[in-house]
Amino acid sequence: MAFQPCGVLTLTTDFGHKGPYVASMKGVMLTRFPAARIVDLTHETSVHWPAEAGFWLRRAYPYFPRGTVHVGVVDPGVGTGRRIVAALLDDHLFLAPDNGLLAPLLADRPTAQVVALDPKIFASLGATAPSATFHGRDIFAPVAAELAAGRLPLPSIGPRVELDELVPSWVDEPQRVGAEVHGTVITFDHFGNIITNIDGALLGGMQRPVARLAGQDFVLRRTYAESAPGEYLALVNSFGVVEIACAEASAHEGLGAERGAPVIVRDAPSP
Amino acid sequence: MAFQPCGVLTLTTDFGHKGPYVASMKGVMLTRFPAARIVDLTHETSVHWPAEAGFWLRRAYPYFPRGTVHVGVVDPGVGTGRRIVAALLDDHLFLAPDNGLLAPLLADRPTAQVVALDPKIFASLGATAPSATFHGRDIFAPVAAELAAGRLPLPSIGPRVELDELVPSWVDEPQRVGAEVHGTVITFDHFGNIITNIDGALLGGMQRPVARLAGQDFVLRRTYAESAPGEYLALVNSFGVVEIACAEASAHEGLGAERGAPVIVRDAPSP
Amino acid sequence: MAFQPCGVLTLTTDFGHKGPYVASMKGVMLTRFPAARIVDLTHETSVHWPAEAGFWLRRAYPYFPRGTVHVGVVDPGVGTGRRIVAALLDDHLFLAPDNGLLAPLLADRPTAQVVALDPKIFASLGATAPSATFHGRDIFAPVAAELAAGRLPLPSIGPRVELDELVPSWVDEPQRVGAEVHGTVITFDHFGNIITNIDGALLGGMQRPVARLAGQDFVLRRTYAESAPGEYLALVNSFGVVEIACAEASAHEGLGAERGAPVIVRDAPSP
Repeated sequence: MAFQPCGVLTLTTDFGHKGPYVASMKGVMLTRFPAARIVDLTHETSVHWPAEAGFWLRRAYPYFPRGTVHVGVVDPGVGTGRRIVAALLDDHLFLAPDNGLLAPLLADRPTAQVVALDPKIFASLGATAPSATFHGRDIFAPVAAELAAGRLPLPSIGPRVELDELVPSWVDEPQRVGAEVHGTVITFDHFGNIITNIDGALLGGMQRPVARLAGQDFVLRRTYAESAPGEYLALVNSFGVVEIACAEASAHEGLGAERGAPVIVRDAPSP
Repeated sequence: MAFQPCGVLTLTTDFGHKGPYVASMKGVMLTRFPAARIVDLTHETSVHWPAEAGFWLRRAYPYFPRGTVHVGVVDPGVGTGRRIVAALLDDHLFLAPDNGLLAPLLADRPTAQVVALDPKIFASLGATAPSATFHGRDIFAPVAAELAAGRLPLPSIGPRVELDELVPSWVDEPQRVGAEVHGTVITFDHFGNIITNIDGALLGGMQRPVARLAGQDFVLRRTYAESAPGEYLALVNSFGVVEIACAEASAHEGLGAERGAPVIVRDAPSP
Repeated sequence: MAFQPCGVLTLTTDFGHKGPYVASMKGVMLTRFPAARIVDLTHETSVHWPAEAGFWLRRAYPYFPRGTVHVGVVDPGVGTGRRIVAALLDDHLFLAPDNGLLAPLLADRPTAQVVALDPKIFASLGATAPSATFHGRDIFAPVAAELAAGRLPLPSIGPRVELDELVPSWVDEPQRVGAEVHGTVITFDHFGNIITNIDGALLGGMQRPVARLAGQDFVLRRTYAESAPGEYLALVNSFGVVEIACAEASAHEGLGAERGAPVIVRDAPSP
């Protein structure tokens, strides 16, 4: 359970960019660890819905250096007794509330190691008493800074937690059901692409995969540029999951799909 | 009036994220002070309304390291003769137009020390001639960089200004009026929480404080999670001020309050 | 063609702030070049329209230190055979798709030196195979990091390209036509200012310049503060181009102009 921090931290929240919410987390981190290099992963996940934050963390963490500390704070249960957990996976460390946020990351990773933050360890850091409503700044930020600074060895922060003791995901993992793959719309990006949690690897063996959303079928292409502007398509996107897009336009505006909507990919009959 | 810079700067503006307005301030800072660590406090304060920027600076600065230089640029008077002032408070330095922006920070801080930037000092920095419309980039950024780099001792930048010579706040400070506390809606956050300038300390002695906004009463709770989703509440938030919220929903959308609206907190009779 | 990198990189994209698109570019850069200092120029240019990104790069790059690597990714042709080019100008390096993005930068700069990225050079960097849809992360980020780290000398990355071999701009450069200057609306900022590509230098000799947009005339002023709140005006803004504004309000909301609309500046007759 050794973790070698590299000094990089990422932040994933539903705080948006109004007010100093994210900034005050950074201030706390820089106060404890002046050499921290802090990257905003995104602060525009669906509010109060941890599933998107965990989804993007799973998809994005491999692009960061080993030794990165990733902090995810989508925390509707802040101020209740929910635990804070740290997970070590592929030499990356993830810190989040135990509310299902990390579940997409840990779903198929039995070797991940998870510990729960011991309040006594937190007390030993000399941080000011946490507010009831902003643990991102008052608990996550100082703990993450100490972990990233290499001053808080991971195993010492609290008791080991088994993966099946964690709060489960708010969204089912995609799965193969006979010849189909069943998944879920997780979010929409700035271009209006509709992003599902269906990993492209689940489509293995399909010759002409077609994604079905809200009663419509979308043939999978390789790039946006293979479709004419305004034409709908599906593809396995650059983060490895199926998305439904509209070339040079917004599929989300055009189709109006909702977060959480079911998506099915199947193999079309040969023409 | 000694100031020991730590190399951190924060930026608070109403520039939003379109175009290179903020970025060009950072470019100027990094050109003069390559080791600067620059944090965006927020760039989404109400445009042309300095009161929100000063409010958030007051509430957020304690989370940054001592020695931070905080730059606030909400500057509808840019290009007129309005002064630029620097205030030293708790080993933090604040640089802003003299347009009321800093007033919320300085309201109850008689020990703060304020100087006005002398145009001759600015001229001595070798910066290019300022544009008429973007002093954030052309004056604030180079001056802040020199201050943060420790090359411009604070007292030398211009004449001392007494606190009562500064342009006053655009919003009254909250005050106790008999058994009530009177304050003002300052802003709304990304969650739709309605944020007032009423410091929780002003509620001392109240047993069952209730906030009144637009004719409706909201009982103060400790956390969002103490209310059922969709239920309205008030609380003293993590920045120490009264806010009116709706659990897991947007109070701002639901209640439609305006910036500047009056809010009164009083003690409810025992049930 | 020597380029001395200073360790600063800027990012200009149409990715917005939802999802980890920008963040994963930063993660790749920090993995290869831990000392990189990365500045977001803007991520809110018009989607799928390279002209705005190039416009802002042209206007903002001089505020960054010499030796900065500027990455522009507005890339509707990603996954097709479009080239990636690097341009050296004033000791700044620009990396972008060859889709017209850099044209506003290079329009009047015959001394700029441009090379096309050789796929074999990219292959030599040991990056993972690029996805079909996100070259910003998979090609631009690793190449930019190597350039900024000083490990990839610019001339070696591929063959020289003549300026007239580049894909032309999507928008005509502004030009003097008799006594008038003809230009184009490029974008709108957070304040609702309507920003054209008409360089103030083109107005040389005019005594009372007036900008015409959508049949209305706007007299040029020096600052916003010279107009009463709510009054329309034009001015040469802090980036050196003509903009049409509404004092303390949004000209874009008030006038409803479209990106690409024609703007003409002429000299008004003496009163």
